[in-house]
Amino acid sequence: MTRKRVAVAGASGYAGGEVLRHLLAHPEVEIGALTGASNAGELLGTLQPHLVPLADRVLDPTDLETLSGHDVVFLALPHGQSGEIARQLQAEDPSVVVIDCGADFRLQDPSAWEKFYGGEHAGTWPYGLPELPGQRAQLAGATRIAVPGCYPTVSTLTLAPAIANGLVEPDVVVVAASGTSGAGKAAKPHLLGSEIMGNASAYGVGGTHRHTPEITQNLSGLLGEDGGTVAVSFTPLLVPMPRGILATCSAPLKAPLTAQEAYDAYAKFYADEQFVHVLPQGQWPQTKSVTGSNAVHVQVTVDEAAGRLVAVGAVDNLAKGTAGAAIQCMNLALGLDEGLGLTSVGVAP
Amino acid sequence: MTRKRVAVAGASGYAGGEVLRHLLAHPEVEIGALTGASNAGELLGTLQPHLVPLADRVLDPTDLETLSGHDVVFLALPHGQSGEIARQLQAEDPSVVVIDCGADFRLQDPSAWEKFYGGEHAGTWPYGLPELPGQRAQLAGATRIAVPGCYPTVSTLTLAPAIANGLVEPDVVVVAASGTSGAGKAAKPHLLGSEIMGNASAYGVGGTHRHTPEITQNLSGLLGEDGGTVAVSFTPLLVPMPRGILATCSAPLKAPLTAQEAYDAYAKFYADEQFVHVLPQGQWPQTKSVTGSNAVHVQVTVDEAAGRLVAVGAVDNLAKGTAGAAIQCMNLALGLDEGLGLTSVGVAP
Amino acid sequence: MTRKRVAVAGASGYAGGEVLRHLLAHPEVEIGALTGASNAGELLGTLQPHLVPLADRVLDPTDLETLSGHDVVFLALPHGQSGEIARQLQAEDPSVVVIDCGADFRLQDPSAWEKFYGGEHAGTWPYGLPELPGQRAQLAGATRIAVPGCYPTVSTLTLAPAIANGLVEPDVVVVAASGTSGAGKAAKPHLLGSEIMGNASAYGVGGTHRHTPEITQNLSGLLGEDGGTVAVSFTPLLVPMPRGILATCSAPLKAPLTAQEAYDAYAKFYADEQFVHVLPQGQWPQTKSVTGSNAVHVQVTVDEAAGRLVAVGAVDNLAKGTAGAAIQCMNLALGLDEGLGLTSVGVAP
Amino acid sequence: MTRKRVAVAGASGYAGGEVLRHLLAHPEVEIGALTGASNAGELLGTLQPHLVPLADRVLDPTDLETLSGHDVVFLALPHGQSGEIARQLQAEDPSVVVIDCGADFRLQDPSAWEKFYGGEHAGTWPYGLPELPGQRAQLAGATRIAVPGCYPTVSTLTLAPAIANGLVEPDVVVVAASGTSGAGKAAKPHLLGSEIMGNASAYGVGGTHRHTPEITQNLSGLLGEDGGTVAVSFTPLLVPMPRGILATCSAPLKAPLTAQEAYDAYAKFYADEQFVHVLPQGQWPQTKSVTGSNAVHVQVTVDEAAGRLVAVGAVDNLAKGTAGAAIQCMNLALGLDEGLGLTSVGVAP
Repeated sequence: MTRKRVAVAGASGYAGGEVLRHLLAHPEVEIGALTGASNAGELLGTLQPHLVPLADRVLDPTDLETLSGHDVVFLALPHGQSGEIARQLQAEDPSVVVIDCGADFRLQDPSAWEKFYGGEHAGTWPYGLPELPGQRAQLAGATRIAVPGCYPTVSTLTLAPAIANGLVEPDVVVVAASGTSGAGKAAKPHLLGSEIMGNASAYGVGGTHRHTPEITQNLSGLLGEDGGTVAVSFTPLLVPMPRGILATCSAPLKAPLTAQEAYDAYAKFYADEQFVHVLPQGQWPQTKSVTGSNAVHVQVTVDEAAGRLVAVGAVDNLAKGTAGAAIQCMNLALGLDEGLGLTSVGVAP
Repeated sequence: MTRKRVAVAGASGYAGGEVLRHLLAHPEVEIGALTGASNAGELLGTLQPHLVPLADRVLDPTDLETLSGHDVVFLALPHGQSGEIARQLQAEDPSVVVIDCGADFRLQDPSAWEKFYGGEHAGTWPYGLPELPGQRAQLAGATRIAVPGCYPTVSTLTLAPAIANGLVEPDVVVVAASGTSGAGKAAKPHLLGSEIMGNASAYGVGGTHRHTPEITQNLSGLLGEDGGTVAVSFTPLLVPMPRGILATCSAPLKAPLTAQEAYDAYAKFYADEQFVHVLPQGQWPQTKSVTGSNAVHVQVTVDEAAGRLVAVGAVDNLAKGTAGAAIQCMNLALGLDEGLGLTSVGVAP
Repeated sequence: MTRKRVAVAGASGYAGGEVLRHLLAHPEVEIGALTGASNAGELLGTLQPHLVPLADRVLDPTDLETLSGHDVVFLALPHGQSGEIARQLQAEDPSVVVIDCGADFRLQDPSAWEKFYGGEHAGTWPYGLPELPGQRAQLAGATRIAVPGCYPTVSTLTLAPAIANGLVEPDVVVVAASGTSGAGKAAKPHLLGSEIMGNASAYGVGGTHRHTPEITQNLSGLLGEDGGTVAVSFTPLLVPMPRGILATCSAPLKAPLTAQEAYDAYAKFYADEQFVHVLPQGQWPQTKSVTGSNAVHVQVTVDEAAGRLVAVGAVDNLAKGTAGAAIQCMNLALGLDEGLGLTSVGVAP
Repeated sequence: MTRKRVAVAGASGYAGGEVLRHLLAHPEVEIGALTGASNAGELLGTLQPHLVPLADRVLDPTDLETLSGHDVVFLALPHGQSGEIARQLQAEDPSVVVIDCGADFRLQDPSAWEKFYGGEHAGTWPYGLPELPGQRAQLAGATRIAVPGCYPTVSTLTLAPAIANGLVEPDVVVVAASGTSGAGKAAKPHLLGSEIMGNASAYGVGGTHRHTPEITQNLSGLLGEDGGTVAVSFTPLLVPMPRGILATCSAPLKAPLTAQEAYDAYAKFYADEQFVHVLPQGQWPQTKSVTGSNAVHVQVTVDEAAGRLVAVGAVDNLAKGTAGAAIQCMNLALGLDEGLGLTSVGVAP
């Protein structure tokens, strides 16, 4: 089989770098054009010194000329910049697979886009979370895929069995502790190492974080048509680690439920998924176990006194939370083995 | 005025060391006996190298002979060990002020003690959280004080204005990200630096953490007699920092409420408190701002879409969360200025 | 005694914030004007949320009008900006004590300044390291003081007894691992938390770091006139912690020397210093023991096989490494007790 | 080709876990027995939760019965325990490849072993650092291999071109900042996260660390027979990161040398090595770039004022510093491609 020729737009950022790290381990691709914006013309070896085999590559500008002629194009661009270049690429060659790591095509509701991101809604593409019921079929052979946000990935997968099985009221609380790479590589004072180390903080409190409507969309989708909307209280925390999200999710029980019943429902829901790992009962997720991997670790229990189901999930925001999902979706789009080039093994300690 | 002579039992641990750090900055005390268990006979300079002025002190055994003859005795012992020595001390001298940094005397309900700690309940002492309504009066002149747990301190103070003012349903969700010093100095593999750095994890999930009944007791107390019990869903997280707790707390609104109304209620509730600092509106707490200090930083908002009030609080688990509170209580017990030897200024960055 | 009125220019940065943290604990000062550059007009509570008692202060512009009328002015400005404002302040009032936390007035050799900093040399002020032989007298009553750099402080104090006593050849190797706050609060991509955590790196390798000539000047000064110049190989490392420097220093032995003899020389050299703590023999310094404090911890041994004396020192780069030294110098300049408002007790763990 | 059947003794520790992580990515092996000591009988999924594909494996005891019948046996045991089991394994089947990740067979000089490790010297096996001149040939087809220590790996590779080319005097200073996983998984108070975070410390100062004679042996070997012994002043530092070593190495120049000449010598020395990456001139190594990978990053310059060559190297202590090297040696021993199952791509940020 001929290797697929793949381009990455936005190769100097964290998402782009992680897509490249994954592609370097993928046996069926050849890495083509790498592009940057202000970094065009610079050596990748300086910008991403961990990607040794690509050290001599020079970044090209992000434009149609550079990106055309590939089988797959990954877009790892700031939100709002994917729409135009995607349009151009597919106008030139409708068969090119465009995989957007940004938020532009994730939301179905234009008003939610406008409220949380501003500007005009670019459209809605197949949503790259194959572990959602029915979603894998949408991605097979797709030429446009919207990679989910990192918080929505772990929040959705941690709550999906409870929501889909009707174990809880559609009224969830998610508090997700995240590493800093989710905030990107743009230098801002509050993201300096001096500020981050030894520090935990909350941000986007009160439902104002942009991933809130995406979590709502995913969970509400599990209720089925006419199932109504899941109320989502989402609070992201920044904690002192470079990667990883730990999502603590809970919701009121609909009816009495034992911890064992909850566990069994989770185990069954994910029985056929290679990347979602329901831990042995009593063992709780930690982010380090999934560092660098495409795995999601999940555990669940019931708090009888509080009348709530409590589930915790861990993901690497850059891997399964972004780049790993992008590769998984590429595999599905191209008809390759879904796990090709991916691993469920984390780098620990 | 003669300086008060103060002893610290358990001087080799994190709580004991932090009590000593505070005492070294207190103008009205003289540091007397320092005791240890397995560390008796060792130099404090080896065990707590940051306490330079006490470097030449040798730890004595924790017994009546060593601890008698002081005006104040701080107990920083493992849970369950405070009862007997406290009894002996006060039998010998009823006027000695005994301040227990452990859990032994915090809970009012013996069955809660037995369920969460095991063994026999030692009793209930005045609870050392002066910021709770009416509590300061209980502590003035007291000779026995139970220092609150670290999670209960920040959870209670972060939710108190909402509960006391009836802004929310008595059904709260608390997810609290903690540094590792709360787990103490006993060496356990999961607390190794290699395991902790780059890692976030949940533990005590489903209401099984020992601080759960203490949070419940505090919040329910705010409902008044016959006010019933507040349902508490509490999940502690371990995140990679040595100190600090960030508590994200939420509850369903009882009636429509604006963020401004919530903020005003919080600002008013703490208007006279020197150590609880409601941040300027829109600014969210971070643990580093309170490192080493007796301050608690709090902020609140309303999530209209989710129908919840969301409040976040930050505390240093060893300072206001343990040793600072102990000093504050000592000041109240001795009739000194409540803030003597304490600071609201954190060590940052 | 009337409290001295003190201003801080550059109050929004790390050095300025740390000077303020120290001033808030000082019993003989009153905090006057606080200034910023691009931050003028902003609330200190937003910029330095840990300085609660100053939360309502607004930053003024850094100019003569704002800074005049104080007894003491601390300059915590970018290198090269102290000269002009210092000149204006002392032209207006020759008795004002100006303490420069920057590098402008540290070097005696104009050509060293030009080589390492560029631009014109502003001059040489009394050097604020009272622990150097003869230096304390220079600082008593001084109206202009140059606060030493953080690396030079710890490197000099760690090697001084060996150099001054002629135990080693004048040919030293210093490798100093530093926390990130030394790099300041200006946002640069390589200082992001995502880059810093889990990472150690070298910079300024090969003698190119700006603190190299200052270390050379200090150590050579210990050789006395005509003593020649100490050759200094200095390599700074960036390691994942917000504060602290650990300097590993070594030099060839001049003549056979036992570890005990080396230790005794160090103990004797610092016998009368309250802030330099030679640890018990066999116990090695760690930065956390001095966090937030004005202490320097030092230890020394002899490596017979390698024929070298090896000494290690720890300092908090922002405290004794900058702001603590500045306060210590102010005390000397004003004739106050040298340790007033300072502590030798670190915040640990 | 039939996959090689591989066993790992000591699978619950950090070295054993990392060997397994590497084996899971290796296309030509099948993972056989996994053994532990006190952990025998426990699930690997509990002990090493990041190794998801092996989660259901139970640890067997470390004995001949369990370990026999494999093509390759990796020993990741405490120092001093490899000798006996290795002897038994090769007595039973002389063709089994035994790869010792411990120190037992690294040193050539029995007296050095006795001085630094105590007890009887077990012997000397081919030393698994193929990048040393002539060493690759020793490893091809070997059935016994001693994996180098982590500090010696990076120190040797960082200095080898300078020593082998006679650029410097045989008198080197190495200061190496290490992450904590090198200290293993046994719980000790000074390795607790609470102690490690925000802290840098020195240990084994004065040439007392056990890796000192191994570094000396390697560097002296580069001088050739009759070349004498390289004097090594080695100081290890513990810094707050889980993985990685950054070694700062210097030595006096033998004769005038430009930075360019030094760089060229390094580039030439490693021109054919796939895992030693001399960075572009002016770019200095950082540990994060090599996290999880088998790469070593190196840079060199000349400090003219100090008369020294200064080189810096970065390695992942668990990967190329232990487990990656073990796999690389296995490949050589079995006649496989040397880089099979290994990567030069780090996990960053």
